[in-house]
Order: sequence, then C-alpha cells, then structure tokens
Amino acid sequence: MTSSEKTTQSAVSDQDPVFALHVGGKMEISSTVALTGADELSLAYTPGVARVCEAIAAEPELVADYTWVSNTVAVVTDGTAVLGLGDIGPAAAMPVMEGKAVLFKQFGGVDAIPICLDTTDTDEIIETVVRLAPSFGGINLEDISAPRCFEIEDRLKERLSIPVFHDDQHGTAVVALAALQNALRLTGRLPNTTRVVVSGAGAAGVAVAKILKAAGIGDLAVTDRQGVVSSTRSDLTPVKMALAEETADLTGRSGTLAEVMAGADVYIGVSGGTVPEEAVASMAPDAIVFGLANPTPEVHPDIAHKYARVVATGRSDYPNQINNVLAFPGIFRGAFDVRATAITEGMKLAAANALADLVGDDLREDLIIPSPFDDRVGPAVAAAVAEAARRDGVATR
Amino acid sequence: MTSSEKTTQSAVSDQDPVFALHVGGKMEISSTVALTGADELSLAYTPGVARVCEAIAAEPELVADYTWVSNTVAVVTDGTAVLGLGDIGPAAAMPVMEGKAVLFKQFGGVDAIPICLDTTDTDEIIETVVRLAPSFGGINLEDISAPRCFEIEDRLKERLSIPVFHDDQHGTAVVALAALQNALRLTGRLPNTTRVVVSGAGAAGVAVAKILKAAGIGDLAVTDRQGVVSSTRSDLTPVKMALAEETADLTGRSGTLAEVMAGADVYIGVSGGTVPEEAVASMAPDAIVFGLANPTPEVHPDIAHKYARVVATGRSDYPNQINNVLAFPGIFRGAFDVRATAITEGMKLAAANALADLVGDDLREDLIIPSPFDDRVGPAVAAAVAEAARRDGVATR
Repeated sequence: MTSSEKTTQSAVSDQDPVFALHVGGKMEISSTVALTGADELSLAYTPGVARVCEAIAAEPELVADYTWVSNTVAVVTDGTAVLGLGDIGPAAAMPVMEGKAVLFKQFGGVDAIPICLDTTDTDEIIETVVRLAPSFGGINLEDISAPRCFEIEDRLKERLSIPVFHDDQHGTAVVALAALQNALRLTGRLPNTTRVVVSGAGAAGVAVAKILKAAGIGDLAVTDRQGVVSSTRSDLTPVKMALAEETADLTGRSGTLAEVMAGADVYIGVSGGTVPEEAVASMAPDAIVFGLANPTPEVHPDIAHKYARVVATGRSDYPNQINNVLAFPGIFRGAFDVRATAITEGMKLAAANALADLVGDDLREDLIIPSPFDDRVGPAVAAAVAEAARRDGVATR
Repeated sequence: MTSSEKTTQSAVSDQDPVFALHVGGKMEISSTVALTGADELSLAYTPGVARVCEAIAAEPELVADYTWVSNTVAVVTDGTAVLGLGDIGPAAAMPVMEGKAVLFKQFGGVDAIPICLDTTDTDEIIETVVRLAPSFGGINLEDISAPRCFEIEDRLKERLSIPVFHDDQHGTAVVALAALQNALRLTGRLPNTTRVVVSGAGAAGVAVAKILKAAGIGDLAVTDRQGVVSSTRSDLTPVKMALAEETADLTGRSGTLAEVMAGADVYIGVSGGTVPEEAVASMAPDAIVFGLANPTPEVHPDIAHKYARVVATGRSDYPNQINNVLAFPGIFRGAFDVRATAITEGMKLAAANALADLVGDDLREDLIIPSPFDDRVGPAVAAAVAEAARRDGVATR
C-alpha cells in the first residue's frame, strides 16, 4: 500500500505526519539468535530445541530461563475505553496498544505484545487471558471500561501467578501520587491534614483514591457526574458504594463538585469535562490542581495558574506532565527482574516514592515530576519495585 | 540468571550449546519508529495516535495499513503434539514456537507471535483464537494433536476471514509434494500411474494424502498401526473413514504396511517407527523413499539407498531434507502480500510447484528439493502463492 492509494479516504490525511509514521505499524519481531546455516538451525530449532522442551517439561520453572516468556507482557484490551475516544472496538484500539508496546520496550526493556480481543464479556475476557497466560510473563490490562475492568483485574489476579496490572488505574495512580507528594512538600502540607477532591469515579479515579488513602491522605472526596460519591446517594454501583465508604463517608462530605471544591487543598481531575473557574477560585490558598484529562484538561493551565500554586496536566506541552509512561515500564521491569508473582500495593507505592525522589533538590512549582525522557526514571522505578517485591514476599529470585 | 545457577539441575547441561543459545529466549520486540523526544511521542502515542484510531474506527480495513496486524501471524499451540515429544504442555512447547517465529521472520519477513494455550479443549481453543483474531493477520496452528487439529482448523477457517494454516499438516504436505514431483520427473513417472504408500494417518499423513490426490496421484494407500486405512476395517474414526474412501478404497487395497509396500513406487513415512528392510526391498524398481520422522527416519538412508533410487528425510545432515521451513514463511508472505482472506488448496499446490521448479536443471538423485538457505525459496513461494490467491479470488489487493 502507498499513501497515494489513500487519497480518496476522508479519515486519513496525507498531510498528517501521524499517518505517515503509522504506515505498516510501529513494531516488529526480531530474532536474538543467528540463523545463518544448518548448524545454527539445528540448535535453535529441530533437533536441538527438543532438549530444551524436555528440560522444561521436567522442570516447568525453566521456561523463565530458556524462553522469552519471563520478559514479555500481553497488553490486553477489548477496545471499550480507548484514550478519550470511548468504545471504538479492538481493531481501532491497536495503534494505542502498539504505542504502549513500543514504550514498554524503550523505557523498560520489556517485550510487550498487543492483544486486542473480539469480546467485551467479562467472563470471556478472563477465560481468554487465563488460557493465554503460559505465553506471557505478565498481563497489562488497558483501556477496558469501568466497572468491568475492576472485576477482570481482581479475578485475573486470583487466577494467575504472574503480575496483572491495569495501567489506566494503577499507572495513573502511581504517577499522580508521585507528583502530589512533591506538590505537598513544596506547599508545606502533610498528607493526613490535606483535603483532596478527585473528580471521576471510573478506572483512574478509583485507583487514585485507593493509592492516596494508602499514602495517608486523610480527607478525600471523589465525585462523578452526580456529585460526591457518598452513601447518602441511592444510585451507587457496588464499586462506588465501596469507594464512598473509604472516602467521603469518613468525613461526611456530600454535594456537588463545586461545593466540595470550596476550601479543598488539592483537585485531581481524571474525568474529562470542565470545572467552573469559580470552583477553582474557591479552593484553599496555595492550591494544587491536576487536570489530567487528555487532550483537554478539566482545568486549563491558564485558568488554574490564576488560583493555584502547583499545576499539572496530562499534556506534554505544559510542565508537570502526569504521564503513565513514567510508571508502567519500570514497574514491569522491576517485577520481571525478581520474577515477581504479583504487583502489590507496596510495589506501587515504592514506584511512586522513587519517582518523587528523582526530582530531589530541583523541586519547584513547574518541576514536581521527572520528564519521561529522564534516563534515570526506568531504572529507579524498577529498582524500587524489585526491592518492594522482595519485602512483600512476591519475588521468586 | 546465569548458567552456573543451573549446575544442580539435571535436565540442563552446561556443556550443551543448545541451552547456551536459549538463555533468555530467541526473540524480542523491536520498535520501527524513533521515540527520542516529546514530539515523536506525541505522534506515535497520545495525542496523535488518536487520529489513527478514529480513522480505523470509521474505516476498519485501515487497520491493515496503519498497524502491524497485517504482517503478523499467531503461532498457536496447545502443546499436545510437539515434535516427536508428544503432549508436553504449553510451557514446554514455547521453545519450538519461538523457533518457528524466528524462522517466519528470517525466511518470510513475517512477524510471528508464539501463543501457547492453557487448554486442550477443542471448543475452548477455537473460541480463544476467534477472540484473539483482531490482533493478527493470520493463524498458524502448530503441534496440536490429531484428530482435534482437523476440527480446529476447519471451524476456524469457517469463522475467520484471515489465513488459517495448520503447518504440521500443510507445510509438510507442500514440501513433500514438491520433492515427490521432482523425484517422479527424475524416475520418469507420471502421477496418475504412480503407486504411493503413506505410513501415518495423523495430521501430516492426512494432509499429505490430500495434496497428493489433488496433484493427481491415482493409487494411494495410507497406513496406521493397524495397517492400510480402508473401509474393510471396523475401527476407523470419522476422519480415517473419510480418508479411506479417498485413498485405499478406490483401489481396493488393504492389509499390512509390508503387504501394501510390495511393488509400490513411492513410500512416504510420517509416522515414526521403523519399516522392515524386507518391505523396502519389495518395492518397485527405481523406488522413491521418504522417511520423514525426526530424528529417526522410518527407513534409515543407508538402508533406503540399498533399494531405492531417490531418498529423502527430514534431517539436515542428509541430502533432500523435507523441511517445512521451505513452505510456511513464503506461504504466509505471499498471502499477506495480497491480503488474502484464506489459504486455498490452489495456493498450497502453487507453493509446491514453485519449490519443485527452483531445482530446475540441477535435478539429480540427491537434489530434489532446494536448501532452506537458498535465498530464492521464500520469494519464489510467496510470488506463486500470491498469484494463486488472486486466481482463487481470495486476494483483496
């Protein structure tokens, strides 16, 4: 195919460098062994390979030593919650999954394989991934819509003894926590006396709330389109009911987003939509505002800076980019380095702490999180995650 | 892990170069795009990638142009019939699947991903592959035991509009036919007056019989451990009953392997086991003997040469190696080049003819099939397969 063949197709622009870059996809398989003659062929394939097969059949754990499995992650999606595009299906999700795979390799040395599934049924997704599992060292769930993503992750973690990680939840949560820790330090706050509002109770919102609790945030309210998620409401799903009990119910907060933002120290948006300027203006002095929706933050940085001291977004063209790529490659690298059987809460917190620590003495309002292109990021996160895996008893070497 | 850690493990030999070569596996993922800064990241990933996703959502066939999918094949096994090792399970099958993937790339430029499934249930394998299908441009079934492999291939071909190919069947059949065509030419035989015996009625035997029929062999008998597969027997499975009706029943042959080999022009072994020397001695003058079991041919070449004019094996250390790698990389390359929706019988026959033709005027008793390292093989097979796909109406470009 040439790009000229596409000139009649309206969805594709020949002038757009994005399409030029994507022709033929973004990744390929490479061999790590030479196959230049019959001798090599007889080692890498028949008859020699049979001896490796027999060794693994006798000692199954040898598969980690003598195949690529222990360095591979399946990037699994059903295409139901892709970027801000929503349910676009498995084929249209592939460019994102390939991008993720490229990032896994570049920033973590992890071999990632995009798996776009032609089913959105929870049980079918779970069964499919369980059947695929011998082929992979880990499972990265991606762009699966809430609330199915919670059940899928939970049940896969129960069924499998390899790391299972839903990046939309935990990658976002880890990086947001790292940035928040530095913002708190900069503004002289302590977690247990900081009041935080998270807008969005989907995959990212639930995970951000969970990690903030684990990091000691005492006063936390999560909102959805109906306002604060609290037990005073009668419309909560089981996931949101549990969320309410862990967050707003503890402080008795309820009401609208604007109401709960009044006096809050921190706003973290993982919802899309727009927060009224008056609500931002009503926050506490030295406020912290993270508008993470992409490409349009819930609070535009120009607005946020009028009222807040520290501002972060998900965008690469503003300072303080909260980008998952800071977390997932290093997290899987660290887990794989010690052949961890799971990714624990401790490993996620360790990743966040390592990220926050990298900023060190450079900390200032427009530098609360490292750049994705800071070479120290992947190794620092990996080392911290590996150490936490050992501490948590999930490392196997 | 280092090799020294393995000294206590009996199955692994530190002195064996096969294990040294396999440390860490034989393959990796590589990016085909540069990601050196935020600008590239914003093209290959968010926010730019969203435009490609939207284009594919609007025009699904664009996935073939702007992702790697149209150049990928899943190498799918359940680990039930691996090499001559039998049912060793999905983990122990991985070294073979990786080897296959390396060969796909080296000889066909095809990106192959090993998928070792944790199920041996026919329905579950089919459902799993159907759900995975959006991620791949083709499915190569591998080392799945008979008779399940027949039903799995047939039903997947019905369900999917991408090439589905069981290499143990059709790869073996294509290369065996190519070699046989040249052997017939060398010995002055015509297909319709040649008498052939195939020992082995598993995946390879059934497929070899089928392609030989399609190539015009008139007198064909297939044997299993109980002798000639014919309707005179009461122990036939449905697959073997159908096979009998297409082969021995047409000529009324029955009896033992030794009985049916008496006077036969051609013996093709895809069964393992050993053929008595007396049976080989009883074949027609200028006999053709292919003992394809690996590593131990059904007829050792030294024995075969005492009675036969043309001898082939599956081994790389004897002339005339019948090696599937001569077929599968070029077959998928050709299918992918024209984005074929299936692999037809015509495409398989075209692959065999192309392979046979490559020998050309070099034809002699110890050169009836090209070497796997003959650079012309992949392109010649691919071109012939692509042309046949167009002829058969399954090419989409």
